[in-house]
Amino acid sequence: MTLPTFQDVQRAAALLQGTAHHTPIHTSRQLNDVSQASVFLKCENFQRVGAFKFRGAYNSVANLTSDKPVVALSSGNHAQGIALACQLLGKEAHLVMPEPINPVKRAAVQGYGGIVHTPSNPREAETFTQDLVRTLNGEWIEAFNDPFVIAGQGTSALELLQQVEDLDVVLGPIGGGGLLSGTSLAAHGINPKIKIYACEPAGALDAMYSVQENRIVPQENPQTIAEGLRTSVGTITLPILREHMAGFFVVEEQEIVNAMRFIYERMKLIIEPASAVAVAPLLRQESELQGKRVGVIISGGNVDVSQFFAGVFGHRH
Amino acid sequence: MTLPTFQDVQRAAALLQGTAHHTPIHTSRQLNDVSQASVFLKCENFQRVGAFKFRGAYNSVANLTSDKPVVALSSGNHAQGIALACQLLGKEAHLVMPEPINPVKRAAVQGYGGIVHTPSNPREAETFTQDLVRTLNGEWIEAFNDPFVIAGQGTSALELLQQVEDLDVVLGPIGGGGLLSGTSLAAHGINPKIKIYACEPAGALDAMYSVQENRIVPQENPQTIAEGLRTSVGTITLPILREHMAGFFVVEEQEIVNAMRFIYERMKLIIEPASAVAVAPLLRQESELQGKRVGVIISGGNVDVSQFFAGVFGHRH
Repeated sequence: MTLPTFQDVQRAAALLQGTAHHTPIHTSRQLNDVSQASVFLKCENFQRVGAFKFRGAYNSVANLTSDKPVVALSSGNHAQGIALACQLLGKEAHLVMPEPINPVKRAAVQGYGGIVHTPSNPREAETFTQDLVRTLNGEWIEAFNDPFVIAGQGTSALELLQQVEDLDVVLGPIGGGGLLSGTSLAAHGINPKIKIYACEPAGALDAMYSVQENRIVPQENPQTIAEGLRTSVGTITLPILREHMAGFFVVEEQEIVNAMRFIYERMKLIIEPASAVAVAPLLRQESELQGKRVGVIISGGNVDVSQFFAGVFGHRH
Repeated sequence: MTLPTFQDVQRAAALLQGTAHHTPIHTSRQLNDVSQASVFLKCENFQRVGAFKFRGAYNSVANLTSDKPVVALSSGNHAQGIALACQLLGKEAHLVMPEPINPVKRAAVQGYGGIVHTPSNPREAETFTQDLVRTLNGEWIEAFNDPFVIAGQGTSALELLQQVEDLDVVLGPIGGGGLLSGTSLAAHGINPKIKIYACEPAGALDAMYSVQENRIVPQENPQTIAEGLRTSVGTITLPILREHMAGFFVVEEQEIVNAMRFIYERMKLIIEPASAVAVAPLLRQESELQGKRVGVIISGGNVDVSQFFAGVFGHRH
């Protein structure tokens, strides 16, 4: 197994140039005051499909050498990323989206021309996907355990380090570890002294144990609103994480919601729960972060706002 | 009565430099496709206090020649703008906030050191404010009918025209007309050919009639979720609007919510209903906008999201 490198991230950046958005950095005096740090949010919520996942999906699809249809298993941002990447690159995309599917995400995938498949039994989604790949003679692109996906995800941190000088720390949320693997390759490729911390929900605490025990600890009954963080790490991401992580911050569910609310109220950014996981350690003033220049990868902004828009009409001041 | 000029907007811009945020422009392929135009959103939702109102408030407070306490009547963004401006400039701020007050806005005003007064009878808010001004020997800064406020609001359009070349059209929401008066002075000071359209809710349609009839048509029973647009125009804004507006677009309530939802789903921006009023004409493909380069002043991002954050915990996918 060949692990991706810093050079792979640089190649991905060249390939994504002009196709992925060069996302902005947002800062806030109030966030700096509360956290006692200088905080720079890398806003992948403004990335295409509303999440960093477009970067890895596009890099992976663009590096396919065959004309085979592409298959992905995801009911979240990876599905949207693959569907849009395939549309842009003229490939057929088949997305296996297990229930419960968010209807907005399903519509988005279909809007990009993706073909949606829903396994009748969500527990058999993997088998269903394997069968589909065989039937279609397709290429399965995994959501995080793929060198091109990881290299693509790293392009966000590459931009961050170009946009903000002298960062001491980078924070990111961890699910399967694709984002933080790519982030590590990029950040340590530029400056090996940067400390990278993984932020993980207490209700889905497998990545920390996996890194500690050097084996993939399965994620069996995750209890967190941070949908994207419910997966286990993979065979490619685990060794990269073990090499690069300075540590883990464990975040409670109430802290996730508090961080989402804080970031909306003070910065007018709607961030998805996974992103809030990476903001929460700042709000509780973790000692490793105080006085530091901290970059945070805001992974995305895809949340179900149907209740919010329903409520807009209900509230009259 | 002296009307503000383009030079006043330029002076305001110099004064706000380094204090107000230079807000970003956001664009979207999908918005361009749907509207059949090239659309540039000037994101005052990322301004301090979450709205363009900080610009005019700060310019007005900074131009006061006395040390008197400042008084403002507003339960919305003007109150927050005045409170923060006074905090930054070392002045005492008294905010008359009639019920119903949004508790988040009240807390924000108090967080900036503002002293909140609530008249027992909301219908007597003006009299209450006059009495307070007398008692405190204070300076009342009106929310829009003030030359310095108008000049300050114009600095957003000034930036927009520096950020985006060759605009054909600028759209903005209209309530009292402060934003569009300042916008007109700025835009026509740079390029008199730019067409400026006012966007007004059908349920609060007084500004259009005021401009048509050349008199202040009072706003008696406004029915719109766009809180900031429920006021009548003023003696200073009316003549400026009459001189500069190319026309009005009238927007229904359902269009406001649809525009808010579209801008969130496709661009991950939460915009307040007033801002959505200025986006709606694009979504219905108004003929005057098709094929044009259109700047839109996104007035702010202060909306009540309590239902949304309450809902985050309720939704598990």
